[in-house]
Amino acid sequence: MVNIENNKKIEFLSELEKLKLVYRQNSTIGNTRFENSAEHSWHLAIMVLLFDTEIDEKVDVLKVIKMVLIHDIVEIDAGDTFIYNKNIEDESVEEEYLAAERIFGKLPKKQEMDFKQLWLEFEARETTEAKYAAALDAIQPLLNHSITGVGNPHGLKKSQVIARKKHIRNISKSLWELAKELIDKNVELGLFKDE
Amino acid sequence: MVNIENNKKIEFLSELEKLKLVYRQNSTIGNTRFENSAEHSWHLAIMVLLFDTEIDEKVDVLKVIKMVLIHDIVEIDAGDTFIYNKNIEDESVEEEYLAAERIFGKLPKKQEMDFKQLWLEFEARETTEAKYAAALDAIQPLLNHSITGVGNPHGLKKSQVIARKKHIRNISKSLWELAKELIDKNVELGLFKDE
Repeated sequence: MVNIENNKKIEFLSELEKLKLVYRQNSTIGNTRFENSAEHSWHLAIMVLLFDTEIDEKVDVLKVIKMVLIHDIVEIDAGDTFIYNKNIEDESVEEEYLAAERIFGKLPKKQEMDFKQLWLEFEARETTEAKYAAALDAIQPLLNHSITGVGNPHGLKKSQVIARKKHIRNISKSLWELAKELIDKNVELGLFKDE
Repeated sequence: MVNIENNKKIEFLSELEKLKLVYRQNSTIGNTRFENSAEHSWHLAIMVLLFDTEIDEKVDVLKVIKMVLIHDIVEIDAGDTFIYNKNIEDESVEEEYLAAERIFGKLPKKQEMDFKQLWLEFEARETTEAKYAAALDAIQPLLNHSITGVGNPHGLKKSQVIARKKHIRNISKSLWELAKELIDKNVELGLFKDE
């Protein structure tokens, strides 16, 4: 029986409202505002349905969708990490672990364990599912930049972007080709510097 | 092989950027802006993972997730329909069909057929999966109002809301109880009028 008083699922779902206000380094069309992590996760989930044929290994599509739906929830506490800033990385990992404890900890035990495990698996990038999810997570902002014509506000070099995204080729050569094409398109649009 | 030139999947995914700018009758926390249909769909997809135990019949969770991820894509052309306005309903159905043709038509044939069929199944509300998806779609704005403390800008009566959402009980008595509790909470918050 579902009941809103002392209902852990409702508490968790209420907490998730906050992810709609965690803004990323990407813009919406027309540059009216930054993209948020909730709508980014939705975009990724649809990508999962379209590109599984580009993965040579057998992939559990439902598992990858679950991963991408929850992968950024920790940002409610930890914020969106600027992945090109190496110095802040270790610090933010610690923050994200604490966030996972707090936020997934709102759920009933079964779902808490399920979501924590999926999040840890995503972060470790060792399984096919995690590598596929991470590849799409790396491609989506490239696609977004190319559509909106708006780059990362910090300004990025092509070489930085390639260094950060080359993990894509570990799971799919064709997705890596796609990523490189998008990177080149963004260079042409003047959004990444090619030095 | 994926390739961004003449790539139907990329064209479709680019089109989806527009759903992030289709605003609904709900607000984000702090009432800084309206909620958009992309982040709403993300919220629903996570709800699918949490409430399938409230459905007595066997339910295909992946199918429901796919349904909720794509159910509002037609709004890119048709806009968010104000479901309490009966007069505009017939007109918007026609618009939504045309939108489904245009937008899902961007995909390769296989995915086009898959997504169109899922969307039509959702709209028909006849299968367990479609009824479950529709139930969550009806509950999520109630939850959102109760968290943000912001009601529908048109102002709604409790009786109107119940009439519109009572289909929830066709798929799950406990989800209908949850919906009624949320409706009562929103009445208490002064967001729905109880006359």
